[in-house]
Amino acid sequence: MAGNFEDIAKQFVTFYYSQFDQDRKALSALYRDGSMLTFESSAVLGVNSIVEKLSGLPFEKVKHQVATLDAQPSVNGGVLVLVTGQLLVDEEQRPMNYTQTFHLVAEGGSYYVFNDIFKLVYG
Amino acid sequence: MAGNFEDIAKQFVTFYYSQFDQDRKALSALYRDGSMLTFESSAVLGVNSIVEKLSGLPFEKVKHQVATLDAQPSVNGGVLVLVTGQLLVDEEQRPMNYTQTFHLVAEGGSYYVFNDIFKLVYG
Repeated sequence: MAGNFEDIAKQFVTFYYSQFDQDRKALSALYRDGSMLTFESSAVLGVNSIVEKLSGLPFEKVKHQVATLDAQPSVNGGVLVLVTGQLLVDEEQRPMNYTQTFHLVAEGGSYYVFNDIFKLVYG
Repeated sequence: MAGNFEDIAKQFVTFYYSQFDQDRKALSALYRDGSMLTFESSAVLGVNSIVEKLSGLPFEKVKHQVATLDAQPSVNGGVLVLVTGQLLVDEEQRPMNYTQTFHLVAEGGSYYVFNDIFKLVYG
């Protein structure tokens, strides 16, 4: 169980949702051409399509609240992250539960998102 | 987006939960010494520790019901899977929501579970 994968996961998740809630177009820095996003079972490939997808989501204000975060070292020095949390959009008062998994791949001294799957959870 | 990763994911998930609900010790065939399981934030490494962990869970009867399944091709021909669902244990009448992510790694013509993270979702 390699050293600091948990720190990497925590730093990434904090940064990701902070950026998402502030200006989700800027998330482009975290994806590459081989990255894939599946958002509510709709899949897109590559940084441009991913940012287009995220930018086009039908809300303006959004606030993620992470409830749990688990991480594991993955193959080739990567990190796998599973998040559960709640999000509020626009003027909606009831938070929605969601789960999201990220597969972070090492690149130089840093990481980018190779796999990203987001799913709302209905109880 | 490689060919049949969705079929692989569906076949795997069907087999995994069927086996889990019937005889979870037999899941040993799906893990290797480098595999990792994080079950409710408790992490174990290697097939023996994983099977010990699963066998020791405090319920006898369990029934998983998959609600959603999303898959993506991962690095090195692997497959990343995100499941949401509900489970019932023993005589409990209220199902619990859960989410689980599997990272399947190619081995010969088949796959094994390299990463496995399970988490209950409270709404």
